[in-house]
Amino acid sequence: MPKTAGIILVGNEILSGKIQDVNAAYLCRELRALGVDVRRIVVIPDEVELIEREVRAFSADHDVVFTSGGVGPTHDDVTIEGVARAMDVGVVRHPALVALLEQYYGDALKDAHLKMAEVPAGAELLSGESARFPTIVMRNVYVLPGVPEIFRRKFDGIRERFRDVPIHLRNVFVSIGEGVLADYMNDLVREFPGLAVGSYPEFSNPEYRVKVTIESRDREYVEQALATFLGRLPTDVVVRVT
Amino acid sequence: MPKTAGIILVGNEILSGKIQDVNAAYLCRELRALGVDVRRIVVIPDEVELIEREVRAFSADHDVVFTSGGVGPTHDDVTIEGVARAMDVGVVRHPALVALLEQYYGDALKDAHLKMAEVPAGAELLSGESARFPTIVMRNVYVLPGVPEIFRRKFDGIRERFRDVPIHLRNVFVSIGEGVLADYMNDLVREFPGLAVGSYPEFSNPEYRVKVTIESRDREYVEQALATFLGRLPTDVVVRVT
Repeated sequence: MPKTAGIILVGNEILSGKIQDVNAAYLCRELRALGVDVRRIVVIPDEVELIEREVRAFSADHDVVFTSGGVGPTHDDVTIEGVARAMDVGVVRHPALVALLEQYYGDALKDAHLKMAEVPAGAELLSGESARFPTIVMRNVYVLPGVPEIFRRKFDGIRERFRDVPIHLRNVFVSIGEGVLADYMNDLVREFPGLAVGSYPEFSNPEYRVKVTIESRDREYVEQALATFLGRLPTDVVVRVT
Repeated sequence: MPKTAGIILVGNEILSGKIQDVNAAYLCRELRALGVDVRRIVVIPDEVELIEREVRAFSADHDVVFTSGGVGPTHDDVTIEGVARAMDVGVVRHPALVALLEQYYGDALKDAHLKMAEVPAGAELLSGESARFPTIVMRNVYVLPGVPEIFRRKFDGIRERFRDVPIHLRNVFVSIGEGVLADYMNDLVREFPGLAVGSYPEFSNPEYRVKVTIESRDREYVEQALATFLGRLPTDVVVRVT
């Protein structure tokens, strides 16, 4: 079965419009390229009860879950606590993380920093090559930071774990509108029920009016559907196929 | 009570990394400026059961809900059906929308276009000045399109409905890290429990290391908290206050 993923962004700063998310957008592109199907993204405030509820639901509904944000040393960093509650375990200080923090901060180490050594009891640490600190995994939940540079570095260190059968995509750009196109697409969807067919209208692009996407993990199936679709469309409406 | 909002993005194209959302980001900024508290954003596939489930939950949990996407004439446009199911009503063709479509498309009108005249039974139509087509509202759920230009034009036409008591925000930029800052912030949060306090570390900005945000709808309360916070911080760590 294709692997599914869910993404939980813990971020008052996104909800209040202070910053625009880039981590979920990045992860969607990366996971897609790896062949993983992102089924759901949620953005919630830095509140432990909400994090608990989402992590519990996401962890049950998806093969893998990624959280972003809420993992620093301050009062509003409550993701670890939320993940622990969702898994019905306590929060403990991990000796390996304490050692890393001691090494990094030296004499400047404060109590608050040690909050970053906390993990849900039973969590694993994954040490990638590309990140200074290991990534915390609790069952199927990967806890990543909100800062985009570190988020990407940490994900790079673990990405190969998620590689799956790639999704095959073909695009058909047409010069007709969705209203006329609808019948052709409905026929295609009926005949190839295993296909994901999308249509994306453009309102200010002089080259084409709609991009039709045809996708599946089965390359042959996609190519067969594409040939069928192109065979039925009036040839003069097809602008480009990629 | 402050007004709360939830945003539901219906979008395979976001989940599969084909496009990056701009509608939720825009709406968060706009609603924030209006004094509305966005509590939750979710991105889900174009699947009617998922839309139904989310709309039902969001509508119960928030004062207002906005959906984006899934409202065109093709097979994957199922938002109206999802909203109708969530409200336990059927889908009907609205005569005013049929008339608009007939006028707009003339002889080129297809059956598929008439799908865009469908609304959940009992829905209201809001005619703004700035959009060609009215916005469909079903109880507290505002149905907006996925295409960003049209999304914005439609929201502009209805924005004044949502104006609430503004949220007052002050920012303190400091040259110390979160580890040292944590105690000062914890004290502040304890003393001013009605405050939303956030901290945003910067790792590559030479000017400051952390931005602290202090927010509430009560301007006096924020100013009092700000004065207390600044009075306690060593003066040489405060880079800037805005």
